[in-house]
Amino acid sequence: MIPTTPLKTAYPWTRTPFIASAPMRLIALAPLAYAVSLAGGLGFLAAGTDLNDLKRQLQIVTDLVAQTHLPGSSSDLPIGIGFINWAVDLEIALETLREYIPAAVWLFAPRKNEDLVEWTKKIREVSKGKTKIWIQIGTVTDAIEIARSCHPDVLVVQGADAGGHGLAQGAGIVSLLPEVADGMRGMEMESIPLVAAGGITEGRGVAAALALGAGGVVMGTRFLASKEADIAKGYQYDVLRTRDGGKSTIRTGVYDILRGTKGWPDRYNGRGIINQSYLDAQKHGRITDENKKLYEEALQKGDQGWGENGRVTAYAGCGVGLVKEVKYAKEIMDEVRQDAADVLSKLSRATSNL
Amino acid sequence: MIPTTPLKTAYPWTRTPFIASAPMRLIALAPLAYAVSLAGGLGFLAAGTDLNDLKRQLQIVTDLVAQTHLPGSSSDLPIGIGFINWAVDLEIALETLREYIPAAVWLFAPRKNEDLVEWTKKIREVSKGKTKIWIQIGTVTDAIEIARSCHPDVLVVQGADAGGHGLAQGAGIVSLLPEVADGMRGMEMESIPLVAAGGITEGRGVAAALALGAGGVVMGTRFLASKEADIAKGYQYDVLRTRDGGKSTIRTGVYDILRGTKGWPDRYNGRGIINQSYLDAQKHGRITDENKKLYEEALQKGDQGWGENGRVTAYAGCGVGLVKEVKYAKEIMDEVRQDAADVLSKLSRATSNL
Repeated sequence: MIPTTPLKTAYPWTRTPFIASAPMRLIALAPLAYAVSLAGGLGFLAAGTDLNDLKRQLQIVTDLVAQTHLPGSSSDLPIGIGFINWAVDLEIALETLREYIPAAVWLFAPRKNEDLVEWTKKIREVSKGKTKIWIQIGTVTDAIEIARSCHPDVLVVQGADAGGHGLAQGAGIVSLLPEVADGMRGMEMESIPLVAAGGITEGRGVAAALALGAGGVVMGTRFLASKEADIAKGYQYDVLRTRDGGKSTIRTGVYDILRGTKGWPDRYNGRGIINQSYLDAQKHGRITDENKKLYEEALQKGDQGWGENGRVTAYAGCGVGLVKEVKYAKEIMDEVRQDAADVLSKLSRATSNL
Repeated sequence: MIPTTPLKTAYPWTRTPFIASAPMRLIALAPLAYAVSLAGGLGFLAAGTDLNDLKRQLQIVTDLVAQTHLPGSSSDLPIGIGFINWAVDLEIALETLREYIPAAVWLFAPRKNEDLVEWTKKIREVSKGKTKIWIQIGTVTDAIEIARSCHPDVLVVQGADAGGHGLAQGAGIVSLLPEVADGMRGMEMESIPLVAAGGITEGRGVAAALALGAGGVVMGTRFLASKEADIAKGYQYDVLRTRDGGKSTIRTGVYDILRGTKGWPDRYNGRGIINQSYLDAQKHGRITDENKKLYEEALQKGDQGWGENGRVTAYAGCGVGLVKEVKYAKEIMDEVRQDAADVLSKLSRATSNL
């Protein structure tokens, strides 16, 4: 009856509606991941593309677990780890996952979908099934192919409104989630929970995701404005000041080029706040040397490199316009859950008149 | 308590949840518009860019009204008319609106937002307020500016998943709708109902839109597969066969160019099903003469011009993957309302556990 049951079973300390925090590269580290789990969600630590710091982060979580009491969590780490698959060596990841067993891994952006089969199999082996496999998809085609080949424990269904990297072309969750749900039902795999991502920053979005068939949601952009995020003040202020998320952000490859990020498979790009670097690239139809130079200079300015006339990248999703205040992760979680419950309760009163 | 109240008051024959059909140019004519209203919604007739046929269409609706009994409708026409503002002369529109008074007009895509002020004022004058003003927006900025200058009766909040013409850049309704709602509340204009459009083709999308703060929804793509739509069989079959809406459709200006459609303000383009014309344009980075020639040849093929290897435009939204069967408008309306009610009822049972 309650759509979150499978997630609640896997993560007994979590509350309803189920909320996870996204493994945002360089930003979602041990403090944020653990704070989200401690607040009744599932926090993801970003391993991202570089595993050098991962063990240290996991040791911080291990120490936090020892200091605090997370009701209902088993002895293993009550957080997840997000990997950007194309950039990471499976054997190196496995070595860490043998030592620190997380409650989930989140796999995203393999060079080809088949690569995920071995990742799934090996991680299940080393964790003896304790680490649940989350796989992020952005199309119905990928959802069906991956469900068939990997039998993931959770599918993260990411819509086009998401911030940071995702498919360059795709639908928002309003269309994507129901079609994925129907696809899963057609394969008799509807028991795999769908977790919605992309554009959700508050209670209304959570309630909408549940209506669309999600068993839970992921928020990324909302946690950029959390006290536990490892984020530059300039970047965080960009998130707070930006309004009209669909108008103020853009999916583009420009920021990857300026940042020197290489290796993303062709079909991905990233959504970030529109800045002078992007506008210059648009104006000239390419990234000029002048643009690169100004970007490098902006980087040297620290927090001043962001802002109204800034040039430094601030990845964020379309929901950024709804994020207005930096709060503790626990405050965010409590508020979003309460708002979602209020919306659903209000709708249920309206429903009784249908 | 029930979010649809203002709409129900304005259109007393409508049922809850409130559903309107979009004024799809050349497709949403008298039969579809009236069928939707007769089924308890608000059907929009597309005046589009050419008013030559409008009076004839309105006379058909007038005759249908005389033949059928629409419970609760007043003597004026229980349908709406959609205008594409940049293309239409206000005086010519007013001449028609004096003679046939519709329950609503839907204004979309002015050359500049200020143009809507006169449209709003004049239409209210000629209809003595009987014709309610719906204005479509796709950003929070436009919503605020237009609410302030025009005080519309309804704001149509269109997300990026919508089919056909809309803003080239924007958010899906998951982010856009809550931010517009907050913007209206900030201006103490939250009494203006927000009607959600873009990616909604079935009950889950309707329930989600209500959760996001909408008082009702608009569906376009779903009605492409209605028996009353004035649509080529080839186009309609394209809608039925297409799956994975986010992957199979694209926002582009290519189809306008091939069709010879000129005049859309720069910030608009159209979402359609990806076809060979689009793929050729992508491959060459421009529209070649060969592409144009093949397009013209495809047009000559009639229904065979669409399909797997087709070249003729099929505008459709990301929800197209959920549309699988041609039905009467009444069947669509009954089904979507029932599914939405079921989703809300299921969620309300889950809510009681929150």
